[in-house]
Amino acid sequence: MDIYNYNKGFELLKNRINIKDLEKIEYDREVILAGWIINIKNIGNISFIILRDQTGDVQITIKKDIFNDLEFIKEFSLHTFIVVKGKYVKGIAKKYKEVVAEEIYLISEPADRLPIDENSYFEKRMNYRWIDLRDPKKSLIIKLTSYAVKYIREYLYNNNFIEIFSPKIISTASEGGAEVFELKYFDRKAYLAQSPQFYKQMAICSGFERVFEIAPAFRAEPSFTSRHLTEFTSFDVEIGYISSHYDVMKVLEEIIKYTNKKIKENFEDEINKYYNVDIFVPENIPKINMEDVYEIVGKNNIKENGDITSEGEKILGDYVKKSYDNEFVFIIDWPWTARPFYHMKGEPMKNGIITTKSFDLLYKGLEISTGSQREHRYKILLEQIKEKGLNPDNFKYYLEFFKYGAPTMGGFGFGIARYIKQLLNIENVKEAVLIPRDPNRLEP
Amino acid sequence: MDIYNYNKGFELLKNRINIKDLEKIEYDREVILAGWIINIKNIGNISFIILRDQTGDVQITIKKDIFNDLEFIKEFSLHTFIVVKGKYVKGIAKKYKEVVAEEIYLISEPADRLPIDENSYFEKRMNYRWIDLRDPKKSLIIKLTSYAVKYIREYLYNNNFIEIFSPKIISTASEGGAEVFELKYFDRKAYLAQSPQFYKQMAICSGFERVFEIAPAFRAEPSFTSRHLTEFTSFDVEIGYISSHYDVMKVLEEIIKYTNKKIKENFEDEINKYYNVDIFVPENIPKINMEDVYEIVGKNNIKENGDITSEGEKILGDYVKKSYDNEFVFIIDWPWTARPFYHMKGEPMKNGIITTKSFDLLYKGLEISTGSQREHRYKILLEQIKEKGLNPDNFKYYLEFFKYGAPTMGGFGFGIARYIKQLLNIENVKEAVLIPRDPNRLEP
Repeated sequence: MDIYNYNKGFELLKNRINIKDLEKIEYDREVILAGWIINIKNIGNISFIILRDQTGDVQITIKKDIFNDLEFIKEFSLHTFIVVKGKYVKGIAKKYKEVVAEEIYLISEPADRLPIDENSYFEKRMNYRWIDLRDPKKSLIIKLTSYAVKYIREYLYNNNFIEIFSPKIISTASEGGAEVFELKYFDRKAYLAQSPQFYKQMAICSGFERVFEIAPAFRAEPSFTSRHLTEFTSFDVEIGYISSHYDVMKVLEEIIKYTNKKIKENFEDEINKYYNVDIFVPENIPKINMEDVYEIVGKNNIKENGDITSEGEKILGDYVKKSYDNEFVFIIDWPWTARPFYHMKGEPMKNGIITTKSFDLLYKGLEISTGSQREHRYKILLEQIKEKGLNPDNFKYYLEFFKYGAPTMGGFGFGIARYIKQLLNIENVKEAVLIPRDPNRLEP
Repeated sequence: MDIYNYNKGFELLKNRINIKDLEKIEYDREVILAGWIINIKNIGNISFIILRDQTGDVQITIKKDIFNDLEFIKEFSLHTFIVVKGKYVKGIAKKYKEVVAEEIYLISEPADRLPIDENSYFEKRMNYRWIDLRDPKKSLIIKLTSYAVKYIREYLYNNNFIEIFSPKIISTASEGGAEVFELKYFDRKAYLAQSPQFYKQMAICSGFERVFEIAPAFRAEPSFTSRHLTEFTSFDVEIGYISSHYDVMKVLEEIIKYTNKKIKENFEDEINKYYNVDIFVPENIPKINMEDVYEIVGKNNIKENGDITSEGEKILGDYVKKSYDNEFVFIIDWPWTARPFYHMKGEPMKNGIITTKSFDLLYKGLEISTGSQREHRYKILLEQIKEKGLNPDNFKYYLEFFKYGAPTMGGFGFGIARYIKQLLNIENVKEAVLIPRDPNRLEP
């Protein structure tokens, strides 16, 4: 047997099964498994390998009386990728199922020693993200992200939404100009979309009644917090023919209920294995007026423009946990000074402050979504742009969408990674994406 | 009644139904509808409006004996958006269901006359894409795109794939440097990903066994053909633990079968209404070696590097239609000279030409997908980079993925818009995306 006979290895892969599927196999049957070597032990005439694939670990026992010569094991090191044909036996090892090897071929051998282990510091782990993710605790985050968006889409398709794919290269900076990446587009300048805001609204003006998009969005923000990324997956919804922002919150509430319920049903055991967290499924999500939020978080946590601080968000999260036994809360009716020009104005606060028909959704004291009813009347929209001190010329194309009749509309943006971070109580949002981007991190 | 009382209009929207849902309603019931006015006729004491929403058109009859004064109708023009409360009656109009209006409010009025109609030329229609899409023939394309990706994902989730979200801002130009958009990333240069190729392979090196991504990809190609876009939605699959590229084609074949079948089942009537096309559901997809393809398309359609011309693709499409009664065909085992460095080499042709374990999928004579088994062995990959005359330093991060053990892998990229274009026999791929981008078109 030549372990370097790759073609024999490729051939074996035709009938390879997942390590987890050994559960369904009878003892003494022949099986073919493949994976990374994550441990090797040599004891004279016998060697033990722990082999890992996405579904689990298994012990491969290599006996001299089968292979005659165990010299070839010297070619193996940690994370060598091999394929093994052997007999599934009722072993004596408690922790692992056991397969006694009959044939082994290399699929690919490491060209260097492993540069990280589980104790490596964060930035180094991120430099070797693909090795970092071989740890099932880490890969579960990526898998849950995939399933969270699956459930979100399920809810949306079941409720007559269609998915749109809007351009990410745009001619003008979408929400005012700051914090936008600039690029060279043939002989002119262009920008990367900070959100699909304008285009999802355009879709509603096109006659689609309920649309969503799950796609990358870009922010040239020089932030190094545990909750910011320069590129992130934005989940965006826009709904036409609405009566007010309450119609939008209803949809978002239903999405949260559906998604958390599905995740709990399908992943509770796996989550409990690696994360000490219960998945909370809300029956409903309380709504608190910004006016009342100010009372709860206190003066020190109110910013000049009427927004609240991230410390204020945490205080409110605790308050809602205590008073409503809920991990979610909508902060509604934000002051006009804290919202963009396209939010529709609402009823004033008791003290006369102008509000908008808007909301934020907090999950365990962190904002994961922002939404509103949009101003869809051309003349009022134009007024609001001017009122914000913005130049209408910069919003020429956006304004055009509303020039030829438009339905009422409202929607929200929702950060997938922030949601996953809060779901699993992960400290840094960068752990919740496949390959994070921040001002310093452009690799791998 | 003041038609400008927006708040009353918003209030009515709470109980608004779709125009199509009139089917389910008894005559003489009160209904609330909303939509764009697409036709107005005034005949003395009576006016007729054709109102359109996403689900259909309806005739709104406005009688003087109900409103006393019909002066307010002068405020309406084409594409004014209104909400109507009225009685659903058994009308005499053949083409439309009829509602006799009792209350009407403006939701938003046009600020200008409609700039396009269905006869406007292509570029002008694209400038006012949101009005263009109010035509149900056009919006069906966008809806089918949404459902095509829904069915694709359904197949993939049912077959243990997970969805990944890979970065679009990258540090090095992914496939060699040409035709890539450059951007300013804080104080350094970065690029927009031409495909998620390297990252989907990284995901396999991370231990995920089957991954996919549906996301924007960017090509700075100064092409003005009917099949090129500078930004497009790329559907990408990567599968680990494969035995050869045949495993990859099997998955792609199943996806095509599943998706075309679902589209036929659910949208045949709608498609027939607007497009004169039968949806073909293949039982299987024939495979033709590049060696044999050369014979079929003839010398004039073979490019210098061993690729075939787009005219050659059409000839092959016709050939497959005639010989196999199939709209799909895999061209397999492409010459090494026509494929990128990361394709795995295969058996040589009879005349000794080196091939790759690769394929293209043609649909009605147009390439809609390209795939292969990838070279996953670090040393061979390094050799192949050099053999292509490329600088390994430019692929440093990519090479790293293979340095610490890797499974076999293969996958494909698939152009969603091209697929939809071929499905419906649309002439220009730009009609198959919400908002197209080409070297001149950066707006809206």
